[in-house]
Amino acid sequence: MTTALHAAIAESLRERIRGGSLIPGQAVPSEAELCAEWNASRAPIRQAMATLRAEGLISGGRGRRSTVSAQALAQPIDSLMSYSSWAHSLGRIPGQRTVELGLRTADEEAAGALHIDVGSMVVQGLRVRTLDAVPTMLERALYVEQVGRLLFEFDSDAGSQWEFLKSRGVVFASASHVIDAVAADTVDAAWLGVDKGSPLLRQRRTTRDAEGAVIEYHDDRYRPTEVAFTIQNTPDMRIPLARSINP
Amino acid sequence: MTTALHAAIAESLRERIRGGSLIPGQAVPSEAELCAEWNASRAPIRQAMATLRAEGLISGGRGRRSTVSAQALAQPIDSLMSYSSWAHSLGRIPGQRTVELGLRTADEEAAGALHIDVGSMVVQGLRVRTLDAVPTMLERALYVEQVGRLLFEFDSDAGSQWEFLKSRGVVFASASHVIDAVAADTVDAAWLGVDKGSPLLRQRRTTRDAEGAVIEYHDDRYRPTEVAFTIQNTPDMRIPLARSINP
Repeated sequence: MTTALHAAIAESLRERIRGGSLIPGQAVPSEAELCAEWNASRAPIRQAMATLRAEGLISGGRGRRSTVSAQALAQPIDSLMSYSSWAHSLGRIPGQRTVELGLRTADEEAAGALHIDVGSMVVQGLRVRTLDAVPTMLERALYVEQVGRLLFEFDSDAGSQWEFLKSRGVVFASASHVIDAVAADTVDAAWLGVDKGSPLLRQRRTTRDAEGAVIEYHDDRYRPTEVAFTIQNTPDMRIPLARSINP
Repeated sequence: MTTALHAAIAESLRERIRGGSLIPGQAVPSEAELCAEWNASRAPIRQAMATLRAEGLISGGRGRRSTVSAQALAQPIDSLMSYSSWAHSLGRIPGQRTVELGLRTADEEAAGALHIDVGSMVVQGLRVRTLDAVPTMLERALYVEQVGRLLFEFDSDAGSQWEFLKSRGVVFASASHVIDAVAADTVDAAWLGVDKGSPLLRQRRTTRDAEGAVIEYHDDRYRPTEVAFTIQNTPDMRIPLARSINP
């Protein structure tokens, strides 16, 4: 039972950090306070603190009072870039259904999104992404030809497309995201099982290689009953998120 | 004309950094390259680079090649927290119309949002926020009594409520934001001039004081034709933004 207790104590402290009731720089409750709160001995408390220290959520300890670290609010970027690794990080099962994957000639819209010439070849994909088998997001993706062609070798049941492309040498050096809301069109409605016109949370992503050339463009639409974006901040942080005039 | 030229060069480089075609760690074009690109002498180029260096967007220079700094993608948090300072940072004119500001007894919903007991007193506000006189956002705010009461002394035409509360000693120590999409209800439709049921971009914000107590809760709804949230990132960044299961 000790195993379950230290894990429960660690998770409770994680939640207080994520929720903002314990903020970076603030002291974590002392061992004595946590013993009293949990009616527990020092062993599970110390084990919980060691876990949080290993995760980078708290620092100090060993005699000094532990404090919440500035790193605690930061997310590794893979959980924003990869749907599969995000789902796994939540203990949920990601799934996908490829509706369409094709090579085509770029029209003005596709060329504009990828910053290439009209008439260049592009690869276009439409995928339904699921979470525990529930449709959660509809992904419209565009790739420049040399990146997109790799996807015809990807077994979509085999895991993360993002990991597959990285394993094939594609470098995702920077990404720019625009988050807004949009009314579901007939395609969204059919694949996400929502009414036409209902609100969807949209994330448009432009990804570039190390030379700054655009290699990928996504228009991902989420059912807002299922997914949101969350941000934690303190006033002295600088964060790469901005409220913007919708382009 | 030299004034306009160095400013134009600086703005062009800023846009390449914001857009991701110049990313942190990457070398900025050399003075010689920029001279050729702009058909300019070294003076305006050097002045533009000095401006960007002062803004923290680039580092190095003085003999060594300048590179884009990691700080370049980070935003000071005030532009996320304060509508007024955000609008001013874009060179736009913020405006507001207070529809309602009242002291009332917390029902279950208000008590839950502020983590207080049902029956406590709270201050509730409804404001239309404008950008260059165009309605852009409808703000529903809830404050714990001791913070909210200060607002009855605030002249809403006098500037930022956020700055006013800070000047009165209110400490905004951390904030937690949830961004999703929602269908406009009748109140949204009336004040934002959109159809009922049309998609709005929603930001819910919970703000805490230095002790971790909730002092403010916002439900802000934006016309998505006007406003979006944008994020720039590189893979080695850790950022405080996460895709989440909608709570």
